[in-house]
Parts: sequence; structure tokens; C-alpha cells
Amino acid sequence: MPTHRFTLEYDGTDFEGWQRQPEGHRSVQATLEEAIARVTGTAVRVVGAGRTDAGVHAEGQVASASFATRLGPTELARALNAVLPGDLAVLDLSLAHEGFHAQRDARSKHYRYQVWNGVSPSPLRARRSVWVERPLDLDAVRAAARHLVGSHDFASFRAVGSRVGTTVRRLLRFDVLGSPGELVVFELEGTGFLRHMARSLVGTLLEVGRGRRPGDSMARVLAARDRAAAGATAPARGLTLVRVEYRIRRNPEDLPGREG
Amino acid sequence: MPTHRFTLEYDGTDFEGWQRQPEGHRSVQATLEEAIARVTGTAVRVVGAGRTDAGVHAEGQVASASFATRLGPTELARALNAVLPGDLAVLDLSLAHEGFHAQRDARSKHYRYQVWNGVSPSPLRARRSVWVERPLDLDAVRAAARHLVGSHDFASFRAVGSRVGTTVRRLLRFDVLGSPGELVVFELEGTGFLRHMARSLVGTLLEVGRGRRPGDSMARVLAARDRAAAGATAPARGLTLVRVEYRIRRNPEDLPGREG
Repeated sequence: MPTHRFTLEYDGTDFEGWQRQPEGHRSVQATLEEAIARVTGTAVRVVGAGRTDAGVHAEGQVASASFATRLGPTELARALNAVLPGDLAVLDLSLAHEGFHAQRDARSKHYRYQVWNGVSPSPLRARRSVWVERPLDLDAVRAAARHLVGSHDFASFRAVGSRVGTTVRRLLRFDVLGSPGELVVFELEGTGFLRHMARSLVGTLLEVGRGRRPGDSMARVLAARDRAAAGATAPARGLTLVRVEYRIRRNPEDLPGREG
Repeated sequence: MPTHRFTLEYDGTDFEGWQRQPEGHRSVQATLEEAIARVTGTAVRVVGAGRTDAGVHAEGQVASASFATRLGPTELARALNAVLPGDLAVLDLSLAHEGFHAQRDARSKHYRYQVWNGVSPSPLRARRSVWVERPLDLDAVRAAARHLVGSHDFASFRAVGSRVGTTVRRLLRFDVLGSPGELVVFELEGTGFLRHMARSLVGTLLEVGRGRRPGDSMARVLAARDRAAAGATAPARGLTLVRVEYRIRRNPEDLPGREG
């Protein structure tokens, strides 16, 4: 059965996250699955690259699903967009190699976190950023962010109660763009993110930027391997899954089934 | 009594426009008046520079109100922002010269209209833009826009049924930024705008961009002085009141009370 690869944009405000929830709760996954069922007449299970939390947005979430349809990818994308609600859209749809799995095959993810650092709240930015009123010390924030780039055990930045094999992840990039008093944008890229990791990293750096935590304490926070050592989890609405990277496969038949 | 000058930002999605409405309807004006009453204990009437329609946003609406308060402008702005809902904020508050009137004294206004011209809908842009799927002919749109700049009788671009003395207005700027298939931004500046004028101008130019109306027909549309000669009124959610300009008054005491 052909494997479809979706690139999705959504405004996470009115979704209870990516993952299918019990009846009566609105998830991105179930909304997409229902649209596919409506258009193709087939019940499908969709896999998402990142299981974004309630309120987290996406500009480039990737999802995979195997199903048969008489519609070509372009027609199918158009038909899905015609039935999807206004806060979820298919940006791109293509046929992937057999066995493509949006979550397992993802090589890295790019998240963006937006902080509005103006003196007044900004209603037009409120859905996609958090407001920090006092000017942030971005030199301290940037110095702390540099300590976090690389391969580390990020157990201190993992949601309490979440269980996973290894808590070692590689952060490829943690840039802080902008100036104090303006829009401050955190760009995070990594080979993988633990649950709440992106938001815990940003929340901890915001405490550094407010002068509540020394900028050179990141090594100690990492070494503690204890959620209590890090800062608060920053609110979901500031976070956007920007892009998911996969290994390039020019000729799917040449390659074995799975990759790390 | 001191006259206060407010600069306001709002997300217009959940407001039924600027102007106070009958009980049970949510307007920007009434929301601000209630916040002032709550903070100062005084019932005030606020005047807005532009009476934006339901769904229209503002990055720099200006309002005036005369009332006495023990709070200085900075303290008052902070207190108002603490009680205002998340979709309305005071960006700036200052004392104006006696008799300052945000509407009558406005010299020009700057509106922005956003059109998302991508192949797929964009959920993250949906609150502040309209989606036009087919690539727009922006050369034709720009040529038509140039015909509209200057002093003209804009009766063809006025809401049906609206009454006003003269329908002559001066459009200072009508720029079209961006490229087909991307975000297209209309920047309109004028000495004044008739009801629905900005949205009718954009709606008419979108018909030119879709090839449904010749780009050189603007002189005829203006000459008709008939709403039916122009195009549809573009949806409110694409429009933002960006800025209101006033004559600079360095020393209020030197100048007479009113100006045109």
C-alpha cells in the first residue's frame, strides 16, 4: 500500500495537542484522520514526527500514513484542505518510499520559541508568543544557551513522570535572535526532544535572562539529572514545530527498510 | 480637564468593531471605556481616530478622552493593561494639548491589507489575511493601484447606504509589496477613508489581479460614482489600522483650538 507523507501547518490554540484523545477532545491527529476517511472512505492511522503538546503550533509537522486511494497527491491535498477546519492545513503531500515512518525516520527537528519583550502586551502576537515585560539580559541568555548545545543527558529538562529509554539527546543549534525590548526568538534544532524539553530549556533560559539564575549554571543543571534543577516549562503557545529533517533517499529501492 | 491620548493595539477577530454597540455586543470603545472606569472610577467617553469595522485589527489606533485622574500616564497605561482582555492593549499613553480630538485632528491614516497567495491555506496566517489560491498578476494590480493615488471622488468605493458630506479623499500611497504565490501586502495611506473604502479598493484590485477586471478601468470606476462599478469589499480580517498621523504641535499653547 502506498505510504503518504504529509507536511502540515496548524494553529495549536484550539487543539489538545497532536495525539488522538478520548472522544470529545480535539487533536490534530484525529482531525486529519477523519478528513482522510471522509475523502478516501478509508479508516487510516496517521503517525506524526513530533507529538506536539496542547497549544503548540506547527509550520512544518510531518506525518505518514499508508492507504490506497485513486486520488493523486495534489488532488488529495486539495480535497483534504477543502474539508479540514481553518486551523489545520496540508502544505505538501507526496508518496514516500515503502515503510517511511514520520516519527522513527526523523533525523532532526527544528523548533522556534517566541517571546514578546516589549513594555506593553501585544494582542496581535499573543497567540504565538509569551510576554516578558522586563528587558531580558540576552548576553547572559546566549552564553547559557551555548552550554546546552551538543550531546548531553537532558533528564533535567524532561517532563516529570515521562519515561523513555535514554535521555541523551544532541542539540545541534540553540540560537537566540532579536534584541531586549523587542521580539526575541529562540531557534532550537536537535536530533530529538524529550517531552517538554524545548519548553523547559527556554523556560530555564528565561530565568537566566531575568537575572534569577546564573548563566554559568547550565553544566550543574545538566549534571543534576533532576527536573527540579531546571526552570519552569515555558507556556505552549510560544512554541512552533518549524521543520523536520529526514535523510535524503534519492532511490528508495536501493536502501534497507529502516534507519536510525 | 486633561486630555489623554491612547495608542492601541487590538486583535479585531472577537470585537464587533470599534464603535460602542447595544448591550451584549463587544466593541473596542466600550471595552476601553469600561477599563478606564474601573481603574479611575470615572465614566468617560473615548473617541477613536478610525471607526474600524468588526474583524479589523489595529497596531496603532489612536483614541482621545478627557478625564481627571491621580495616576500619571505610565501608571495609568500599566493599570489599564492589567484589567484589559488579552486582545486589547494600550501601547502608549500621554497627555495631549487641551481639546485634542483623535478623530477630527487626524491628518492621515495608514492601513495594511494582507493576502496569503500560497497554493495551500495557511492556518497561522488565517486570522490576519485572506487566502487567494491562484497566483495574482501583481503587475496589473500595481498599475491599477497607481491610478487610484491622489485626490479623487471615491464614491464608488463607499459602503452602500453610508452618508457623508464630500466623498473626495486623497490617497497618498497605495503600494503592493510581495510576490505572486507568497504573502502580498497592500499599504494604503490617505487623508481620510470612507466607510469600507480601504477594503473596497483592495477587493477591486484583487479582481484585477485575478484577471476578472481590466487594470486600466480604474478611471471609469472612479468616474461612475456608483458602488456597483467597483469590486467586492475584501474581508475584514485582512485589514489592520497601522498608524494615525497628526500635525506636530511642539507648544500646544501657541495654537488655536481646532485644525482641519
